[in-house]
Amino acid sequence: MALATFTAVSKRLSGLAVENTVRDFKTVMDEPPSLGGTDTGMNPVEGLLAALGSCQVIVASAFAKANKIDLQDFWVELEGDLDPDGFLMGKPGVRNGFQEIRFTMHIKSNSPAEKVEEFQKFIESRCPVGDTLSKGTHILPSKIVIE
Amino acid sequence: MALATFTAVSKRLSGLAVENTVRDFKTVMDEPPSLGGTDTGMNPVEGLLAALGSCQVIVASAFAKANKIDLQDFWVELEGDLDPDGFLMGKPGVRNGFQEIRFTMHIKSNSPAEKVEEFQKFIESRCPVGDTLSKGTHILPSKIVIE
Repeated sequence: MALATFTAVSKRLSGLAVENTVRDFKTVMDEPPSLGGTDTGMNPVEGLLAALGSCQVIVASAFAKANKIDLQDFWVELEGDLDPDGFLMGKPGVRNGFQEIRFTMHIKSNSPAEKVEEFQKFIESRCPVGDTLSKGTHILPSKIVIE
Repeated sequence: MALATFTAVSKRLSGLAVENTVRDFKTVMDEPPSLGGTDTGMNPVEGLLAALGSCQVIVASAFAKANKIDLQDFWVELEGDLDPDGFLMGKPGVRNGFQEIRFTMHIKSNSPAEKVEEFQKFIESRCPVGDTLSKGTHILPSKIVIE
């Protein structure tokens, strides 16, 4: 299949707040006061975890039937660690992003446990956001337009 | 500094829709009808681009003054390519996630162009989401709880 291209625009509001626009949808991201913001939305690294969790939930919902899994309920808890010395202070040798992400899937199902565990591995292997995060992706150097 | 841990919970609603909860904030993600959803929110890979763009905007807003940059306005356009054959059909040899992400920063500023271009590189180097995506991160195998 041809490559599909997805797009987003992120625009400064005031303080550290940002408005994201994707098709007809808008979200606000910000930082809590402890990181200099006014706390009007989740911050970008939290948004990244939410995108990963959503991706896993959507894969579960989309593929349960084909995998003959009874899916009565499904949610994912996620956590990720980073060292603020990286992005706040540019400390040499400290990476700015997540050092590790952990997650737990919760499933309500009458399917046999071994089938559910197979499905868990299927979800992990299919999720596009998980693939992007675990393997990394090629980010081209930014272009800049001085308006 | 000690590691900071960020968290999120993503829960199935109906169809492919998902509700994300981070602290007091909630967002909905879904897929457009072309991907089997009911289009009640941006999808996870779009959410990933929005997190990356927000991260760049927040770094710009937070560090403009320290970098002596006049920042009158700032926004980022992002796009990323993936091959739906990967996540939809599990086609061997096709990765499921983004193959490439491109972005353009737009800045309104009276600072000299060379200072603005230095600042552009600073933003790219400091953004935690960009670091996570370009280098990849360690994602532990999922735990599962059968409810």
